[in-house]
Amino acid sequence: MDLKQVIIINSDLEMSKGKVAAQASHASLNAYLRADNQKRSDWLSAGGKKVVVEESREKFPEVVREAERLNIPCYKVNDAGLTEVKSGSETAVGLGPEEASKIDKITGEMTLVK
Amino acid sequence: MDLKQVIIINSDLEMSKGKVAAQASHASLNAYLRADNQKRSDWLSAGGKKVVVEESREKFPEVVREAERLNIPCYKVNDAGLTEVKSGSETAVGLGPEEASKIDKITGEMTLVK
Repeated sequence: MDLKQVIIINSDLEMSKGKVAAQASHASLNAYLRADNQKRSDWLSAGGKKVVVEESREKFPEVVREAERLNIPCYKVNDAGLTEVKSGSETAVGLGPEEASKIDKITGEMTLVK
Repeated sequence: MDLKQVIIINSDLEMSKGKVAAQASHASLNAYLRADNQKRSDWLSAGGKKVVVEESREKFPEVVREAERLNIPCYKVNDAGLTEVKSGSETAVGLGPEEASKIDKITGEMTLVK
């Protein structure tokens, strides 16, 4: 299996590099914790590949719905809003670790964060 | 206990926002996996606070040494170098979850990533 994790950053928000890094880390860790043991272990052994993309928040409900339908571990970050963004802002979504081709059904068209 | 995780980004490298986010996520997850169960659980329950700072790579050996001495979970990321940086580049270090005041002995003077 070719496993990966994809982290989607909310492109509507203006977040600094450090803020994006923290939100991505939240999303990554919590999506990981929702994966089953076998996928966690296989993914970590293979290096824990992570890809960071961006998308408008209006797509987040669809992302979460599709992840549930496809049984992909998924975690949406609602930021406490202590810095930079309003409380409850949906800053990022973590998907996987999961089979890459399966995640690509959701994130395949999204743009990498530069 | 006031637990946090600090992620140190290598300030010598020119990395995009997406690259930094991926490296921070690697560092965060792997440092987490090196923490004991009680600290993992307490930290996650309290929201999993993460702070992202930057420092020159020349400080990394000292950071790792001090983390070992203070018994702080620590993970240094050596990037595979498939994108943006050379293979083996030390892109980031994750510290904690650990008592905030203890981590501050190492990272207290470092600059937040903007």
